[in-house]
Amino acid sequence: MPAMGNTFGHIFRVTTFGESHGGGIGVVIDGCPPRIAISDADIQRELDRRRPGQSKITTQRKEEDQCEILSGIFEGKTLGTPVAIAVRNKDARPEDYSEIAAKFRPSHADYTYEAKYGIRNWQGGGRASARETVGRVAAGAVAKKVLSTFYPDFEIVTYVAQIHDIVAKINRSTVKMKDVEKNIVRCPDVAEAKRMISLIEQVRDEGDSIGGVIECVARGLAAGIGEPVFDKLEADLAKAMLSIPATKGFEIGSGFEATRMRGSQHNDPFEMHGKKIRTATNNSGGVQGGISNGEDIYFRVAFKPPATIAFQQKTVTSSKQDSELAARGRHDPCVLPRAVPIVEAMAALVLCDHALRHHAIGGRLE
Amino acid sequence: MPAMGNTFGHIFRVTTFGESHGGGIGVVIDGCPPRIAISDADIQRELDRRRPGQSKITTQRKEEDQCEILSGIFEGKTLGTPVAIAVRNKDARPEDYSEIAAKFRPSHADYTYEAKYGIRNWQGGGRASARETVGRVAAGAVAKKVLSTFYPDFEIVTYVAQIHDIVAKINRSTVKMKDVEKNIVRCPDVAEAKRMISLIEQVRDEGDSIGGVIECVARGLAAGIGEPVFDKLEADLAKAMLSIPATKGFEIGSGFEATRMRGSQHNDPFEMHGKKIRTATNNSGGVQGGISNGEDIYFRVAFKPPATIAFQQKTVTSSKQDSELAARGRHDPCVLPRAVPIVEAMAALVLCDHALRHHAIGGRLE
Amino acid sequence: MPAMGNTFGHIFRVTTFGESHGGGIGVVIDGCPPRIAISDADIQRELDRRRPGQSKITTQRKEEDQCEILSGIFEGKTLGTPVAIAVRNKDARPEDYSEIAAKFRPSHADYTYEAKYGIRNWQGGGRASARETVGRVAAGAVAKKVLSTFYPDFEIVTYVAQIHDIVAKINRSTVKMKDVEKNIVRCPDVAEAKRMISLIEQVRDEGDSIGGVIECVARGLAAGIGEPVFDKLEADLAKAMLSIPATKGFEIGSGFEATRMRGSQHNDPFEMHGKKIRTATNNSGGVQGGISNGEDIYFRVAFKPPATIAFQQKTVTSSKQDSELAARGRHDPCVLPRAVPIVEAMAALVLCDHALRHHAIGGRLE
Amino acid sequence: MPAMGNTFGHIFRVTTFGESHGGGIGVVIDGCPPRIAISDADIQRELDRRRPGQSKITTQRKEEDQCEILSGIFEGKTLGTPVAIAVRNKDARPEDYSEIAAKFRPSHADYTYEAKYGIRNWQGGGRASARETVGRVAAGAVAKKVLSTFYPDFEIVTYVAQIHDIVAKINRSTVKMKDVEKNIVRCPDVAEAKRMISLIEQVRDEGDSIGGVIECVARGLAAGIGEPVFDKLEADLAKAMLSIPATKGFEIGSGFEATRMRGSQHNDPFEMHGKKIRTATNNSGGVQGGISNGEDIYFRVAFKPPATIAFQQKTVTSSKQDSELAARGRHDPCVLPRAVPIVEAMAALVLCDHALRHHAIGGRLE
Repeated sequence: MPAMGNTFGHIFRVTTFGESHGGGIGVVIDGCPPRIAISDADIQRELDRRRPGQSKITTQRKEEDQCEILSGIFEGKTLGTPVAIAVRNKDARPEDYSEIAAKFRPSHADYTYEAKYGIRNWQGGGRASARETVGRVAAGAVAKKVLSTFYPDFEIVTYVAQIHDIVAKINRSTVKMKDVEKNIVRCPDVAEAKRMISLIEQVRDEGDSIGGVIECVARGLAAGIGEPVFDKLEADLAKAMLSIPATKGFEIGSGFEATRMRGSQHNDPFEMHGKKIRTATNNSGGVQGGISNGEDIYFRVAFKPPATIAFQQKTVTSSKQDSELAARGRHDPCVLPRAVPIVEAMAALVLCDHALRHHAIGGRLE
Repeated sequence: MPAMGNTFGHIFRVTTFGESHGGGIGVVIDGCPPRIAISDADIQRELDRRRPGQSKITTQRKEEDQCEILSGIFEGKTLGTPVAIAVRNKDARPEDYSEIAAKFRPSHADYTYEAKYGIRNWQGGGRASARETVGRVAAGAVAKKVLSTFYPDFEIVTYVAQIHDIVAKINRSTVKMKDVEKNIVRCPDVAEAKRMISLIEQVRDEGDSIGGVIECVARGLAAGIGEPVFDKLEADLAKAMLSIPATKGFEIGSGFEATRMRGSQHNDPFEMHGKKIRTATNNSGGVQGGISNGEDIYFRVAFKPPATIAFQQKTVTSSKQDSELAARGRHDPCVLPRAVPIVEAMAALVLCDHALRHHAIGGRLE
Repeated sequence: MPAMGNTFGHIFRVTTFGESHGGGIGVVIDGCPPRIAISDADIQRELDRRRPGQSKITTQRKEEDQCEILSGIFEGKTLGTPVAIAVRNKDARPEDYSEIAAKFRPSHADYTYEAKYGIRNWQGGGRASARETVGRVAAGAVAKKVLSTFYPDFEIVTYVAQIHDIVAKINRSTVKMKDVEKNIVRCPDVAEAKRMISLIEQVRDEGDSIGGVIECVARGLAAGIGEPVFDKLEADLAKAMLSIPATKGFEIGSGFEATRMRGSQHNDPFEMHGKKIRTATNNSGGVQGGISNGEDIYFRVAFKPPATIAFQQKTVTSSKQDSELAARGRHDPCVLPRAVPIVEAMAALVLCDHALRHHAIGGRLE
Repeated sequence: MPAMGNTFGHIFRVTTFGESHGGGIGVVIDGCPPRIAISDADIQRELDRRRPGQSKITTQRKEEDQCEILSGIFEGKTLGTPVAIAVRNKDARPEDYSEIAAKFRPSHADYTYEAKYGIRNWQGGGRASARETVGRVAAGAVAKKVLSTFYPDFEIVTYVAQIHDIVAKINRSTVKMKDVEKNIVRCPDVAEAKRMISLIEQVRDEGDSIGGVIECVARGLAAGIGEPVFDKLEADLAKAMLSIPATKGFEIGSGFEATRMRGSQHNDPFEMHGKKIRTATNNSGGVQGGISNGEDIYFRVAFKPPATIAFQQKTVTSSKQDSELAARGRHDPCVLPRAVPIVEAMAALVLCDHALRHHAIGGRLE
């Protein structure tokens, strides 16, 4: 793990680079096992799910996000060497950002980057732009391939569970990826999905923004994955999720609701299902003592409303004068539909890295 | 950061060791700056806050947890070399654990350790015991000393904000450590603290257990601390908190409530306070883009009810037979009072490590 | 530091990627301090020193090695974000390598990559090609800029000290970069340089290859840089040098000659030079207990003769049959002239990383 | 890998702690695979080989170095949790060191520690004392057990190959551990061993010191171990060796002699031995492109004469005055006999860590 924060993972290690404006952005994956089949299309498919301009409820910026694999793959298979993937930056409209050069946008990273580095690329958010997540999503596509190779039953499903005050009803145990992708808000509850879309459109028209909750469930992993103590599976998932822009909270299994339960309700009794040890309930969220128990791993992530809104807001200038600012440009009124593949990618990175860590001490040799 | 999960931090690096039974437990801190004044008493004071048997609402196990500094401190000051601190194990009652050798306790780590390692120390939870946190608390005491040396206004206050359904009213901006320590449940709201204590006693008498929420606020740090992208301050805090036994959730600043707010409400406007850039509100929780903005950093952690209860519960044996189990021994009906110093220690470890990381690229030279 | 070996350094962290054939090669630098002035030309100048085809005694392959900065630099200064630099692959002649697909070249990495990964890119050596060092040299150019910013007297001079049995006479204390660059073999001893060039040409014409020794001296660093115990400055320099293709040995200061000296000869007495503590001799090579003492840091690196020769050699096929093989293509009869900037780059990476590590615990604040 | 230098390894990670005086010294091993059989005696045996006072040619200080296993082992087997081993400090004679508090010993780390940290434990060398290697040797004993478990033919033999100008004749391919241990200088050439012992005694009586070369050979590992690029097996071995106090050089396989060979002599032709790919010669030292090829891995380490001698030497005081100093106390006239188990331990740590890294990406699953 790096000192400076642009690398994630211990064995399956992902380093992203790039600002929203400049030559380009991308990712280098070190520690990818060899002989994993992977194609450009596998990666591009995931990038397209994250891409701006994909539907009427996302930003209308046109970014093709065409990926190029620079290294690490030969005749359709990973070599065991670093997989480098780059995406060129296009569609720059620096004039959209001219005002930002001199003023700090409220609840953005403009001021904190300035405080930290004494310099910042003020074009479009620079390194703090959500565009940085392109590299994460590309790496996540590779991680999912690795996990499917080692665990044939592996499956990960991520979806919007709540937009503002609209809460979807979803059967977490049975929901499938195809249910997620059948509407533009990526919520498997068809009725609530419609209401969510209407609300996002309304808020966008008002120049405002809203947040919500994304839920993710991973199935088909073995028991025994995860490291006790500091690198518990839930700890690394929490870190992964809170590293995504605009997130404010994380809960695994019973989450904050557990605080109002009694031990006698909360405990998950073990029981034999044929020759397999299972739990009767799953308040643990598939993880006990930081290690997977073979049940579904599920967790929830809170997203705040995006900071960029059309309203005039109070702020200060970089020369320390009180001022005002209103956003221009084309922005997401709600990041959740496009954040679904990001949450999924980060979860895949955590699970893939932990699976390889488990193998390192003999975990798959039993 | 280690591959195997018993080390935390990048520059101020903490490695804990030890099982609940066996020779002893402890911690090695590498990367501690030299010439920081620290005494045995500074460390022992924190260990005593975590110690079992400290009040009527904690487990009645008697563990003195007397710390011994083995290295790294000379004539009352750190040398810049590893600070090793050990605590001997005492008061073993292996007979309390005989049944556990053959049966997996529900919602404990017994089964997952067995699945992972094919071996476990079944005496008292082994490495999964909360006793492991002794090393964290000792290291946190050192981290707080370092932070106070570099940031004289640094202050961290951690307290119980909720027990089961009892929610305390606390002014997060003004609450002080002395308010916390004036009752045994470590809740600064005196009235609710009394109700919390009664509830814990009642639940204990019923043989059951309950959870709650701990809140932590850190004041007096500079703007600019934290690494963008993967090692955002909130990401590392989330990881730190979810690495504590019995935690199920984390939220920073507005947290899950942010999911129901609009951007126009949620944004924190900047304004000049004299020559200092401040925000009018603090929904961000003191962190923007992963970097501190100079406001109070605050977050909340959800704890589930402890898994060890006196009830007869369904489980399975290690030879894969359905069975039943009831806990014996002396256990905490609610971990929150003793978890307060653990949350505080982990927060201090994150903040100290990030402060040093910031210095590495010149952060204190401005 | 990574689990999988394509990253170097702890704070100033360099990750290289790319095979000799395929999309391209490059490097991502994380942890570069902000506001360091750096231009494309600064980097290109170093790449040109490493470039094939630069003189009559190197391989005649034409690789332009034109670098492109993708991120991390804005208006001529580093941002504190990852600096990504890529070089496209060109001039592929896959027909040169067709035979290698089926046969393991003696003393190359063909067989060991196959043994490790079960797959390899057999075009031109793939990841094991010395072409990988392009990324190191680019990163080294940045590291030298950082060191010069923090230590204005910093200077690093690297040169060929021996080719085969021709040993140059060089005053290590006074030699300058301009002395090195005035001939194509990069040896500051003009007379011996001529003999070296003749020998390399002769060996090339015979289809054979030769090795030699490169020496490096770094001046102008403060005392106090380097970490005791495992990450001693000399330990990290040794690792850096032995990570360069074709190296077989490393010695610092008195090196292997120290084994035949007595302590009374070898010790470097301290003496005051004005207000500065200096040593009368420098058998230590500028490092004591793993930490710089302010004297010149110097070391030597042994390079073997390149494995690729025109002779027919015994080998085996990938289907485990005895066979024979003779190299085709355009190869270096002696790698040392082009290895000088690589040794220098790796030394700069080690020194820069250690300088920042020293700052992290307060080293520049005194 | 740590930022601050007291940890070694990526998966099998070793952190040492302790000064030569103070509570004690020791080691924490994280990432040790579970279910490895190991006893106190396995560790104590190695510590006894390193122990002062073991023969007439080592220092006569009496240190028992009795190890205590604090954690990580249960009923004779590793748990997969951190193995902590501590050794108490005894036999302190602070009066031996009183002069050192005020004067920097030539070619010791006194001055550089002071320059780095602004504080030092001047009793007996503090952290820079060779006593720190107790932790390395203890960890090496565990690493050898792990390697023997995974590779039943694994064998490592380390011996003194040269003392000052006395060079032993040893058949590197056949020499065994029992040949090493049959004399006190640990040189398998019986005739030269006698001369070495006489020379060490003579030099000791003169109050002077001498150095030499230790050679190490590891047999029985599979092909495929080692990471290409920065973490080449020879790079990590070089780092490991140069991290040992008093070392000045490292060479693998043909080493510095390779600089005077031609490619046609140096290349190791492949040939089939039954179904196994072997090399006819082994100038590579068992490593090609940073990865083991299944042949014996061998390397050599240069040790300088110890800095502590009985002669009056020029030096300076900590208050920057020219002065003189002569060592008191009981010191090694030649460190090599006691350094043999240290070299062996460090080699085992490198090989064990790389073996586990190889397993992490599937290396043992083929």
